[in-house]
Amino acid sequence: MYYAVIFRSTRTTTNDGYADTANRMVELAREQSGFLGVESARNDIGITVSYWKDLDSISAWKQNAEHLLAQEKGQTQWYENYIVRIAKVEREYSFGDSGI
Amino acid sequence: MYYAVIFRSTRTTTNDGYADTANRMVELAREQSGFLGVESARNDIGITVSYWKDLDSISAWKQNAEHLLAQEKGQTQWYENYIVRIAKVEREYSFGDSGI
Repeated sequence: MYYAVIFRSTRTTTNDGYADTANRMVELAREQSGFLGVESARNDIGITVSYWKDLDSISAWKQNAEHLLAQEKGQTQWYENYIVRIAKVEREYSFGDSGI
Repeated sequence: MYYAVIFRSTRTTTNDGYADTANRMVELAREQSGFLGVESARNDIGITVSYWKDLDSISAWKQNAEHLLAQEKGQTQWYENYIVRIAKVEREYSFGDSGI
């Protein structure tokens, strides 16, 4: 069993550093203890799902200093709104070579 | 508490009826008992997250006759690969008017 953090967001029209920070956050997340993977897609809305070993890893990531700065800028500049859901993955199945 | 079905997919280059069926599946899902909502984004990969009241609602939706036909066509034509994860939402928080 592991956890998913489902982040759904709507962007503002402000780009100022957004892409660089988004890329940096993925890079930084990958370095965190308990990180298992991340997948992301955006058109009208953005959905990023990151996967973590346990709730403690998720809390630590949320409190990461560089991540906190990004979250602050997310609220003041980049996102119109967002919702974060933390969910425990109970089962999974796949088709094809989905690169689990 | 409620459940999320996280569906991550990679498309083939075959379009034959894909968009119509994708739209129809959202419409049909909305009519199902226990359906709470759905959000979707696609660029390189697609991520669709649907939300359900309980595991029984999710099982019933997976076995819906019209949905089964769409799943069959998904495997033979539309998807290179996909992975479905069923997860129990344990907490959530939001910023702005996220239309929960």
